[in-house]
Order: sequence, then C-alpha cells, then structure tokens
Amino acid sequence: MRPASQDVRTVVCAGAGVIGGGWAAYFLARGYRVVAWDPGAGAEERLHHLVDAAWPALSELGLADGADRASLVFEPDLGRACVQADFVQESAPEDLALKRRLLADIDAATPEDVVISSSTSGFGMSEMQTECARPGRTVVGHPFNPPYLIPLVEVAGGTRTDPEVVAWASDFFRLAGKSVITMDREVPGFIANRLQEALWREALHMVAAGEATVEQIDLSITDGPGLRWPVQGPMLTFHLAGGQGGMAHMLDHFGPSLLSPWTRLRAAELTPELRDAVVEGCDREAAGRTIDDLVAERDRGVIAVLRALGRA
Amino acid sequence: MRPASQDVRTVVCAGAGVIGGGWAAYFLARGYRVVAWDPGAGAEERLHHLVDAAWPALSELGLADGADRASLVFEPDLGRACVQADFVQESAPEDLALKRRLLADIDAATPEDVVISSSTSGFGMSEMQTECARPGRTVVGHPFNPPYLIPLVEVAGGTRTDPEVVAWASDFFRLAGKSVITMDREVPGFIANRLQEALWREALHMVAAGEATVEQIDLSITDGPGLRWPVQGPMLTFHLAGGQGGMAHMLDHFGPSLLSPWTRLRAAELTPELRDAVVEGCDREAAGRTIDDLVAERDRGVIAVLRALGRA
Repeated sequence: MRPASQDVRTVVCAGAGVIGGGWAAYFLARGYRVVAWDPGAGAEERLHHLVDAAWPALSELGLADGADRASLVFEPDLGRACVQADFVQESAPEDLALKRRLLADIDAATPEDVVISSSTSGFGMSEMQTECARPGRTVVGHPFNPPYLIPLVEVAGGTRTDPEVVAWASDFFRLAGKSVITMDREVPGFIANRLQEALWREALHMVAAGEATVEQIDLSITDGPGLRWPVQGPMLTFHLAGGQGGMAHMLDHFGPSLLSPWTRLRAAELTPELRDAVVEGCDREAAGRTIDDLVAERDRGVIAVLRALGRA
Repeated sequence: MRPASQDVRTVVCAGAGVIGGGWAAYFLARGYRVVAWDPGAGAEERLHHLVDAAWPALSELGLADGADRASLVFEPDLGRACVQADFVQESAPEDLALKRRLLADIDAATPEDVVISSSTSGFGMSEMQTECARPGRTVVGHPFNPPYLIPLVEVAGGTRTDPEVVAWASDFFRLAGKSVITMDREVPGFIANRLQEALWREALHMVAAGEATVEQIDLSITDGPGLRWPVQGPMLTFHLAGGQGGMAHMLDHFGPSLLSPWTRLRAAELTPELRDAVVEGCDREAAGRTIDDLVAERDRGVIAVLRALGRA
C-alpha cells in the first residue's frame, strides 16, 4: 500500500554521499525518520560528519516539530533498510549499470507501491527502471547540492512510470518544503542541469583555450549575472534588458547576437514562433507586472542579496 | 592630457538607453558630474525616468559625498558633450558599423588622451577602433545590467589600445566602486557574457523544442543553481560537489558526464592538462580554505540569500 504523501514517516536514503547525505540532513530537519544505507567504506562516519555540518544551517532556517538528528539510523543492509520505507530516495554514483541494478534491488526489497525516487543528475527513469519488477513506482526526483538548502527538485517519470507516481512525488516533495518542477517529458539533464551544464562546458572550454582563469570565471559570475539569478531567471532578466519594450524589443535588438561567436554553443534559429513563445512566456510570468514593477523588484532583490552577503 | 583616474570629475555617457542611462545613474551616485548624449527621440525624458527609477536603490546603498541628480546634464550635441569629458563611456546599440563611426566621432571631439570606454556586449575593441584617429585610448569596459547595481566590469583592450589605457580604465572603474576583471586578450563576449550566453542559448533551444516553458526555465534557476552563484561561482560550486575530494574527485566522478547529452554544447575534452588546470585553479581560489570551510561559507551565503529574499 502506498502511504498518502502526508503520511510518510520514514524516508530511506539509499546512497549517503554528498547528495544522499544532504537529503538525509534535509529530511531529518523536516521531522522525518531517516534510514540511510551506503555500501562505501567509512560511509556511516562520513554521513554523520555531513549531517553535523549541515545541522547549524538547518537549525538557523528552523527545524520542524520533532526534528532530531537521533532519528537517523544507518543500516548496512539494503533490504533491512528498504523494508522500513514510506519513501525511498536513491542517490548512488552516476553510473547507469549500477543504478539499474540498485533500483531493481530497492524495488525488490521495498513494500509494494512505496515510491522510489532517484537523485540522478541526468539519466532518464526510462533507462534506469529497466530491471525493476515494479517500474511504475520509480521516478526521478533531482535535487541540487546541497539538497538541504537549495529548494529545487525536478520530478520526471519514465515510460513505465505510473503518472500517479509523478503526481504523488511532486506532492510529497512540496509537502516536504521543496520547490518542485514537474516535467511532462524526459529530457537528459532535466532543465536546470542542462542550463548549468552549458555554462560549465563553456567555462571548461575557456580554461582549456587559455581565454580565462578559474578565478576570473568564478568572479565573473559572483559579481555579475550571478547576482541577478536568485532574483529573476534568465528569461525575466532579459525581459528587462530591452527597456520598456521588454523581451520583444530585446529579441529584436539582440537577436542578431545569437549569431555571434559569444559562446561555442550554436543558437536556436530565432523563428517567429520561438520569438513569440518567449515573449508570451515572459508576459505570462510577469502576470500583469509592468517593466517598471519588475525593475523595482529586481533592484530590491539585488540590493538585498548584496547586503546579505556583506557586499553593499 | 589624461587626468589621473582619481581626478576624473565629468563622465560623458554617449548613448543613454538602458545601459548608458544605468551608467549615468551610477556615476551620479558616486559623485561624478555626468553629461549624457543620445540622438534618439525622447531620449532625455527616458534618461530622467531611468535615473529617477534607479535613485531609490542607489540612495539605499549609500550615495557618495556630493552625489546629486542635478549633476546630470543632457547635451544634444555630441561634440559639445565630449569636449567636457574626463572619461567617456559609450553605450550605443550593438551595431558594429554604428559603433565604429560613433567611436571615431567621439575620438575626434574628446580632449586628447582622455580614455574612451565602450559598453559593448561582445565586440572586441580591435574591430571597433578601426576608424579612430587615436585608437590607443579606446578600451572595452563591459558592465552588466543594471550597471548601477551589478558590480562587474570586464576591461579589455584592442590590438591598437595602449596597455596603459587598459590599466588606467581598470583603476578608474575600481576607484568608482566597480569589481573589475582585466582581460589580457580579446575574446568575443568576454567572460561572463559567454557563460550567460551558453545558458541562454540552451534555454532558447529548450523552448523551441518544447522541452521546457519560459516559467520552468526561470524557476529552475531562481530556486536552483541561481541561489549558489552569487555566493560561489561555477568552479568553486563544483569543487564542493565532490565531497572531501574536491574538484579532483568531482572531475573523476562526473567527467564522463561531459560526454552526456545534457546540453547541446559539446564539452571540451577533459585532458589531464585541463583537469589539472581546473583543480589547481580551485586550489588557488580556495587559498587554504578546506572543503568544510567552503561548505560552511556556501551554506551561510545561501541562507543569507534565501532570507534576504524572504524565502527562508
């Protein structure tokens, strides 16, 4: 029987490295009981180190009623861990064969219908669920490091995932305090990782070509566009680059720059359909806020961030 | 005669749209006299609107002694503007022929040796300075929108730029309160714009392919990696994705992911030289701070950002 998402009490974290351990810390702080499993040498000790390191941050943000580090159990046997699960979050190394095997083992050991979510950075559940006897309850729930602080979780099912499981997982993560994007299709790397990966690969190319140093790359982000991105995403950011004309003016003005060698990634052709989709998306997202409203919001946000980081 | 960078009193903003007007607001807030020129219909009115909209933010951050919006003069004649300059910041539309012609006109009208800087988003000064009689004093000083809040300025000379002018401009921007990256070569799009452009192009591809909506893209950044980037850049961020092993472990673990179709941008080959350059760069940037130190810094920073934005 699948518990209702609000009735989940015990979360099994299968894999307890940086990501799995971060999930463990998060679920503990939200008042869940956590059973962690990890076959690596010294995993239990590393997990406690990680949870202890995260706890001050989590305490500062506010713990849920009953949240207690003592609700963490390390269980060296996967089967004995999974049998206790109301929900499983798998965070094993990014190795397809390993994840296929592990998900099948988790599936075999976990009570029927309990949802099994994977932290995979980019594999689709379709390619990971192939060896599961009950693939319908497997789903991707992709977090960002550290999972105990970054709100985003991207949820996506595979071809054999029950659509109800995608909805259940989205509800569960929201109840647990996460910001959820539910995807209606499988895209390698999901959304945020694709965007981040494009930036990262361009950065590696620049280091390889001697165009920029590691330090210049980091400074260019922390003191540049990185100050806008917690406040407004890339689309709304460029909606404000066009003055009162918004994204429409921006695309008409900077559209030709898409042909410029400003990155090694070749741009999508700016067809009238794409232009309209982006402009209409910004209008939907603005939801009646004028350019002046959004500029004022951005400015308040950027100032708040600069101040918060002691840089104003 | 070129004034010493600390003796600049009057800044000429040639082009007063979103970027030029943002520069005008910034320089006014830092106590400079600003002479703005823009040939567009209604430019003067738009400029005052922009400066007025920016002023509350600038006041909140703290104005320099003597800062006064009344120190802004709109001058409809380019020659009469430039003759007053101790420094010129050009922010015309991103059109190479236009910038070439305008920079030559500015050069002809501006006192000898006064530095002329361009806000260009991506042209190299080599291709823009071709029609200047005195190209040695022309340099790129690339800001981020809004220039009155985002600290970063990327400074780069062209082949005919006097290296002293690159140094002078870097000093001047620093004295004016900016965070400066001085580049030792011309790269189209400089550094931050290349990174941002890679992300932006991947985002456009995703919208074009129906892989994500505009709203999902923005949420994936504001609630995901965007919360880390004002705190630590992409390199240091990934230095912490590898646990105690840092960037070296991260590249060894996630290196194969560079071959994954996680973005349309093909990755640089992860040669031993590139791996070492990235690992050594992170070690230099860490400057003795351990992984635990950096995790604690990141966590404090992300929490401060979440709190500042009312999202904790």
